[in-house]
Amino acid sequence: MALHRKLKGKITVESKIRNLRQDDIKLIYTPGVAFVCEAIYKKPSEKYNLTSKGNNVAIVTDGTRILGLGNIGPYAALPVMEGKTVLYKRFGNVNAFPICLNTVDKDQIINTIKAIEPVFGAINLEDIESPKVLEISAELEKTLSIPVFHDDRHGTAVVALAALFNSLKLVKKPLSSKIILAGAGSAGYGICKLLRFAGCRNLIVVDSEGAIYKGRTRNMNKYKKEIAEITNPKRQKGTLDSIIKNTDVFIGVSGIKGLLSAKMIQSMNKDPIIFALTNPDPEIDPKIAKKAGAKIIATGSYMYENKINNALVFPYLMRVILDKKIRKITLDLLHTTAKAIASTVPSTQLTYNHIMPEIGNKQIQHNISQALKKFK
Amino acid sequence: MALHRKLKGKITVESKIRNLRQDDIKLIYTPGVAFVCEAIYKKPSEKYNLTSKGNNVAIVTDGTRILGLGNIGPYAALPVMEGKTVLYKRFGNVNAFPICLNTVDKDQIINTIKAIEPVFGAINLEDIESPKVLEISAELEKTLSIPVFHDDRHGTAVVALAALFNSLKLVKKPLSSKIILAGAGSAGYGICKLLRFAGCRNLIVVDSEGAIYKGRTRNMNKYKKEIAEITNPKRQKGTLDSIIKNTDVFIGVSGIKGLLSAKMIQSMNKDPIIFALTNPDPEIDPKIAKKAGAKIIATGSYMYENKINNALVFPYLMRVILDKKIRKITLDLLHTTAKAIASTVPSTQLTYNHIMPEIGNKQIQHNISQALKKFK
Repeated sequence: MALHRKLKGKITVESKIRNLRQDDIKLIYTPGVAFVCEAIYKKPSEKYNLTSKGNNVAIVTDGTRILGLGNIGPYAALPVMEGKTVLYKRFGNVNAFPICLNTVDKDQIINTIKAIEPVFGAINLEDIESPKVLEISAELEKTLSIPVFHDDRHGTAVVALAALFNSLKLVKKPLSSKIILAGAGSAGYGICKLLRFAGCRNLIVVDSEGAIYKGRTRNMNKYKKEIAEITNPKRQKGTLDSIIKNTDVFIGVSGIKGLLSAKMIQSMNKDPIIFALTNPDPEIDPKIAKKAGAKIIATGSYMYENKINNALVFPYLMRVILDKKIRKITLDLLHTTAKAIASTVPSTQLTYNHIMPEIGNKQIQHNISQALKKFK
Repeated sequence: MALHRKLKGKITVESKIRNLRQDDIKLIYTPGVAFVCEAIYKKPSEKYNLTSKGNNVAIVTDGTRILGLGNIGPYAALPVMEGKTVLYKRFGNVNAFPICLNTVDKDQIINTIKAIEPVFGAINLEDIESPKVLEISAELEKTLSIPVFHDDRHGTAVVALAALFNSLKLVKKPLSSKIILAGAGSAGYGICKLLRFAGCRNLIVVDSEGAIYKGRTRNMNKYKKEIAEITNPKRQKGTLDSIIKNTDVFIGVSGIKGLLSAKMIQSMNKDPIIFALTNPDPEIDPKIAKKAGAKIIATGSYMYENKINNALVFPYLMRVILDKKIRKITLDLLHTTAKAIASTVPSTQLTYNHIMPEIGNKQIQHNISQALKKFK
């Protein structure tokens, strides 16, 4: 609080021209800038060479699902978006600008993003309630000429899969281990899709109604139906406390503090892996999880050891997306990125309390850039 | 061109936290940022203390009237908006971010600006065609809770009036001198309203149809009707070449290169004052104007001596608007600002070739801030 109050916000828009002299104004402003305008008018692709567009990302939110705080509106959302801007710059050298919207209407959100597209090289959808945001994302992917990165879905999925790769390696279990995923919002949907793509066959997604299965009718939507199609092969039913029995991995993106109990962990298979990723307060306190027998416990919070946070993904992946002008965020691209991040921690350094690289590790960018060379 | 290509755009979004360490992340991002979000949620006015909102300005354009280049679209508009960002930061320490719109529809422009309002402390409308922009501005002034600064109208009016004050002082003529104003777009309308407010009684506005007078029917709109009501008391008719005879001042915001001829200047009263403000190419080449007998010739371009450019106004005035959270840009406020800028050049330094302060002169900010103390 004191830091935020002192700084009056964490971001600033700066000129790249240091010590601007009066004589420079005729170059960067009128009349000299007119030549630059005309060059872009004549050859539109020049916008990527002559303006900041190619390095600008809009972090767009409507404030409806901020962290685990819920619908707190666009003003209270701004500190999170500014934090994201800071991380984008620090780790990806990306110009990210927060766009907090005064509307929660799906069509108005879509229209606003379409309208502001020209200034940006990519859109980052952030903390917008699901399933609305999935519909917004689908519509924008169809109509925009720039990529739509949905961090809650894409970023979380990559970081969760990377952590899963390294955790399973440590406990010597296969990708076909039994996985419970709590939460069927953007993050849950994204993780589910990516884990299936990666080869996780024994995956069950649980929401507030309990296990999602093919044929369930209560509290379903288009995206949960898709989840039901590709998970829970035995159509298991029941709530988390029963469904978690004899499973190997719990991944929480539920938004519910304290959802996971010690007793539930005790009912899991040997060497349980717990990713309690809800922010700011995880599904279980790491100490309690450890005590209950969790072999690996990781959270999304920078308050604890063993972090699984999107910040390991979005600045680095966006750098590549912008540089290579990648248009579409595919599962193949996310899968490759997850492998690249996981490989950043050498086997010799991998421990139960250290499954992911530190955010400042320069190897992350290098590995992702190398791995994505084939993508367009 | 080379500078723009080398820099790939002139602006960058930066973090205020230098040398961010991993340990800082829990303060600026999750979970620490949640306390800041909750503080704003509980007390919305805290958004001005805890985020960058109070120093952020959106420079919004639809690309329809970029400089004197016309409708070149949002992509070709971006270099001008970035130039504006640079000036805002350099001279006013304001975070200005370009918003170039993918739509030219009035209602869509209004809705987009309403939607993005939360992140900004003020809106700067820029280079949107008239009279559409005047309608947009009027609607936004009614509905937004932040000020709407229309630089083409407000900024140009202030700088023109300031230059007029000092020029008339030099040639020892009164405000009631005969003034011809060429152009009835945003700038023309803005200058007309402000000059009338300041006491210029003998003002005639000329557009492509010739003099605007009460009762004219061709090529009129709501704003030209308003101009007709408050100018041209004798209802003079005719084109520029006839109407300019025996007048004292010509102010050009016509968008037409070369509109003013040497012959027209020769037909004016003794010691003619010429402000040829169209950019990038003025209504007359300053050398030709001088040769034709102009006592004072000034342009809006940084290519020539004796500049009358909005850049003398917008960074400094916006600083005060943001700091004092001024909600409405009134004629009284603009008039006071013009006087403050004019007073920056002491009588002893005032010459025919130096009617305005240099843009970097720190006295400008000081004088405007002092003069606007009484405004809320």
